[in-house]
Amino acid sequence: MDLRIEAALSYDFDAPTDLLLQVELARAAGQNIVEDALFTTPVEGFVRIDGGSAFGTRAWMQAEGRLDVTYRAQVTIDRPDPDWAALTANPPRTMTAEATSFLMPSRYCPSDEFEAFVWAEFDGLDGGARVAAMRDWIEGAFRYVPGTSNSATTARESFVQRQGVCRDYAHVMIAFARASGIPARMASVYAPDVDPPDFHAVAEVWLEDAWHLIDATGMTTASRMAMIGIGRDAADVSFLTSFGMARMVGQKVDVRPV
Amino acid sequence: MDLRIEAALSYDFDAPTDLLLQVELARAAGQNIVEDALFTTPVEGFVRIDGGSAFGTRAWMQAEGRLDVTYRAQVTIDRPDPDWAALTANPPRTMTAEATSFLMPSRYCPSDEFEAFVWAEFDGLDGGARVAAMRDWIEGAFRYVPGTSNSATTARESFVQRQGVCRDYAHVMIAFARASGIPARMASVYAPDVDPPDFHAVAEVWLEDAWHLIDATGMTTASRMAMIGIGRDAADVSFLTSFGMARMVGQKVDVRPV
Amino acid sequence: MDLRIEAALSYDFDAPTDLLLQVELARAAGQNIVEDALFTTPVEGFVRIDGGSAFGTRAWMQAEGRLDVTYRAQVTIDRPDPDWAALTANPPRTMTAEATSFLMPSRYCPSDEFEAFVWAEFDGLDGGARVAAMRDWIEGAFRYVPGTSNSATTARESFVQRQGVCRDYAHVMIAFARASGIPARMASVYAPDVDPPDFHAVAEVWLEDAWHLIDATGMTTASRMAMIGIGRDAADVSFLTSFGMARMVGQKVDVRPV
Amino acid sequence: MDLRIEAALSYDFDAPTDLLLQVELARAAGQNIVEDALFTTPVEGFVRIDGGSAFGTRAWMQAEGRLDVTYRAQVTIDRPDPDWAALTANPPRTMTAEATSFLMPSRYCPSDEFEAFVWAEFDGLDGGARVAAMRDWIEGAFRYVPGTSNSATTARESFVQRQGVCRDYAHVMIAFARASGIPARMASVYAPDVDPPDFHAVAEVWLEDAWHLIDATGMTTASRMAMIGIGRDAADVSFLTSFGMARMVGQKVDVRPV
Repeated sequence: MDLRIEAALSYDFDAPTDLLLQVELARAAGQNIVEDALFTTPVEGFVRIDGGSAFGTRAWMQAEGRLDVTYRAQVTIDRPDPDWAALTANPPRTMTAEATSFLMPSRYCPSDEFEAFVWAEFDGLDGGARVAAMRDWIEGAFRYVPGTSNSATTARESFVQRQGVCRDYAHVMIAFARASGIPARMASVYAPDVDPPDFHAVAEVWLEDAWHLIDATGMTTASRMAMIGIGRDAADVSFLTSFGMARMVGQKVDVRPV
Repeated sequence: MDLRIEAALSYDFDAPTDLLLQVELARAAGQNIVEDALFTTPVEGFVRIDGGSAFGTRAWMQAEGRLDVTYRAQVTIDRPDPDWAALTANPPRTMTAEATSFLMPSRYCPSDEFEAFVWAEFDGLDGGARVAAMRDWIEGAFRYVPGTSNSATTARESFVQRQGVCRDYAHVMIAFARASGIPARMASVYAPDVDPPDFHAVAEVWLEDAWHLIDATGMTTASRMAMIGIGRDAADVSFLTSFGMARMVGQKVDVRPV
Repeated sequence: MDLRIEAALSYDFDAPTDLLLQVELARAAGQNIVEDALFTTPVEGFVRIDGGSAFGTRAWMQAEGRLDVTYRAQVTIDRPDPDWAALTANPPRTMTAEATSFLMPSRYCPSDEFEAFVWAEFDGLDGGARVAAMRDWIEGAFRYVPGTSNSATTARESFVQRQGVCRDYAHVMIAFARASGIPARMASVYAPDVDPPDFHAVAEVWLEDAWHLIDATGMTTASRMAMIGIGRDAADVSFLTSFGMARMVGQKVDVRPV
Repeated sequence: MDLRIEAALSYDFDAPTDLLLQVELARAAGQNIVEDALFTTPVEGFVRIDGGSAFGTRAWMQAEGRLDVTYRAQVTIDRPDPDWAALTANPPRTMTAEATSFLMPSRYCPSDEFEAFVWAEFDGLDGGARVAAMRDWIEGAFRYVPGTSNSATTARESFVQRQGVCRDYAHVMIAFARASGIPARMASVYAPDVDPPDFHAVAEVWLEDAWHLIDATGMTTASRMAMIGIGRDAADVSFLTSFGMARMVGQKVDVRPV
C-alpha cells in the first residue's frame, strides 16, 4: 500500500522553549520511504537524534513565538497482517534483552496490577491466540470517546472507565500483554483509516522472535500503518514534548492511499 | 576502594516458574571486577542476557521448589565522588538519544506531576547545584522507615507520605531531576554503608555529558558503590523478577571493604 | 437465628494514644441484643459516642502500653433475606436526604469512575435485579485472597486486580451500586459463616425506601448478620482507628449459632 | 455585612435526567436570609431535601432540554473572623459523633496519607495556631491556576502539583487538618471577593467545640462568606450533580456588598 502523508502543527511559545518533535517516518523493515521532508519556521539548535528504541527519529529544537511544522512524505508499506492464530509465544528465557525490557510496567501501563485479571479472563489461551482474544475483548468492552481521558490517564483508569481514545486502547492492550508475559510496546503511526484523522497509537507485541503491530481500536491493521516511533508507552512517543509552556494553535493530519 | 560482596537468596516456587535474576556486578567504567561467581541450585534453561540499558547482566532461568542463589565477588572501585557545584546541565538539544529517554516519566517516577513543585522549590539553581539541593531536600524531608512502602508505591505517594526506603528516596530524586529537565535513572548497587545490609538503590543523573551516581538517603556516595544494573526505575532493576508466585525464604547481603 | 459472639483484641501503644473502638453490636431493627458487655484493660477518658450514621456505637479512649479488649454478646437476628427480584429502585427524586448522601463517591469507593462500566455491563437491569447481578458478577470475577490488599486499596485497584478480602468486595459492590444511581454504604457485621473467622464487611443498598444488606463474597446473607456499624466505606467502620502508632498483638473473633 | 447574590446556570440535557441542585443559602447561625428565591424553567418532580450534614438545602428534579436556573438572595452575615491564635483543639475523646465523622478520609481528601508530612512540618503547633500555619503554608506553596485540575483531582495530586483552584486548596487544607486529628469538612459559599466571580469552596475546621470557616486561597474570610452547603469534600457540595449527561451552556455568579 502506498500512502501520502501530510501533517501540520502550529504552536505558540511565550518564551524560548526546548522541544522534542517526533513526526518523521522511521526507516524500518516493512516500509519504504519514497520521499519525505520536514519544514519548520526558524528555530534554534535543530538536531536530530535517534528514537528511543533504536528506531525512528526525534528532533530537538528551541522555539519562540509561533512555530509551524509541516511534514510531507510518501511511503510504500509492505508488511503482512499477522496471522495471530499461528503465532506462538516466546518462553521468557528465549527473549532478547531488548524484548525483556518491554515486559516491565511503565508510566501508563502498570501491567503488574493486571495479572490476576488476564490469567482469569484469558486462561487457556497462549501466544497469538491470546493476543487476538485480548484485542477483541478491549474493542468489545470499550467505547471510543474523545475528551474522556487526558495526559494523566493510565491503563488502570481506562480499564475501570471503559472508554478513551487510541492511546488509551493501546495502553490497556500493552498492560494486558505484559501481564501475560508477552513483551509489548507502543508505536505511533500514520494510517489512512483513522477517524477523525490524527496521529494514531497502537500496540506492538513480541511473538515468535519478532514484533507485531496490533490496533485495539479496530480502526486499522499492520499492513496499513506507516510507523513513526516506538516506546514503552505514550510518554516515549509523543509527537511533541515541550519543556516549558506550549499552546496548540492548530493541528492537521492527512493520510491517504495513492 | 576494594569490596568483598556476598549475596544469598532463597525462594520457594510451587510450580515451574520463569524468573529474571539481576545480582551480578556490571562490567563498567569506574569498577574492576577482580573475581566473581554465581551459584544456583539446579534450574532449567539458564541464559544470561544484557541489562536493560546496555549495561549489566540479567539471567533468565526456570526454577521449581527451593531455589538457592549465591553470588560472591571482589571488586575495585575507582570512581570519584562528583563535585556537584562544578557540574553544569546539558541543554536538552545537546542530549544523546539515550539520555533523552531518561527524561520521560516511568512507572514509579511520574515526573510530569512534579514540574510545578521543582520549579518553585529549586528556582534559580541549575545543573549540579540543583541536583545537590534536591538531594539535600529529600534527605531532610524524608524519614527512612522500612515497611511503609510496597511494590505499588510511586514517587507520588512517597512525596506525600515523606517516608520510605532506598527505592522510594531514589524514585523521588529521579522524578525531581526529570521534572527539572535533567535525565535521571535508577541504579541498583552494592555498598558497604547500607544499614541494615541489603541491595541498595540510588539515582543517576545526566550532567555535562555523563552519568553521575547520587544517593538521596545519604547512606553512601558514588566512590563506594559497586554497580549491578541500570533502568528507568525499580521495575527495571529488581534483583529478582518472578513470572509466577514466589515465596522468599531468606535473603542476606554482605558487603565489606577489604 | 441466635448468635453468641466473642471478640478479643490486643494492641501495644508506646505512648498515650487516642483511639476509636467500634466493636459493639448496634441497637437496630432486625436484631435484638439479649446481653452484651465490653471489657478493656484500664484506659483514660472512655466515652461512648453514636456511630457515624445515626446507628451503632463508637467509643473514644486513650490507651498506653498493652490494651486488651474483649466484647461478648448474645443476639437474636430476625431479619429476612431480601427477595432481590421483587425490589424496585427509588428514582433519585424520591430519595431521602440521608440516602442521597450515600450516592456520592467516598475514599475507597470512587463510584464516579465506574459509570461507563456498570451501564454497559448491567444494561437493562434495574433495582434489585441489577443489585443481584452486580453481586453475582463480583463473586464470579474475584478471588478471595488475604494479603493482596491493604489500607490504601480502593475499589479501583480491587476492580483491576480482581482479588482481595471482604472489605474489597464490599467496596466494589458499593461503587457499582452508586454508579448505578443506587445509594450504598458499608456495614461491619459479625456472622457465623466467615472463614477464617474475623470481623466482616458487607454492602448495604437502598431499594424501595429501605436499606438491604448484601455480601458480595457470598459467605453469608442478611438473615445471618449481626450489625455493628454503618459508614460510607471502610474508613468509617474500622473496629479500631488509632490516632498514633498501634501494634496489633493478637485478634480473635468467634461467632457461633446457639 | 450585607450581600446581594445572583447565580444563573444554564444546562442542556438530551434525555430526561435526574439532577441534584445545591445553590440556595443555608438557614444557619451567622447569616440571616433577608429574602431569596429560586427559579427554574419547567422541570419534573421538584422536591427539596435537607443538605447532607443537617445543614443547607438540596433540590432533586428531572430536566430535559434546556434548563435555566436563577437564584437571587439578600443575606446579612454576622459571623466573626476566628482569632486562630486563641482557639484550642478538642482532644479526640471530647469530640461529638458528628465531628468524629469528619476526621475520616474521603474521596478527595485521603488524609491518611498526609500524617507523616503534617507531623513533621507543623510539629509543635496545636489547635488554631496549627490550622493557621497550615493555611499559610498552602497559600504560600500553591499557585491558583484554573484549568490545571479536574473532577478526578484529589488532595494527593494537588499537593504534588502545587496548583489548582479553590476546591483543590480546600481539599488540601481538609486533608492536613484531619491528618492532624482536627475534624474538617468542605463548605460551599458565596463571597464577594472571589475573582473571577464563581461559586467558592472553603474548609471548615472543628476547634473548641465549634466549626470555623477558613479559606486557604486567602481570597476571603469567614465574616464575608454566605454558606450554601456542607459535606465531606467536593463530592458532597457540588452546585449541580447530574445523573446522566449534562452540557453546561453558561454560568454566572454575582455577589456584591449592599
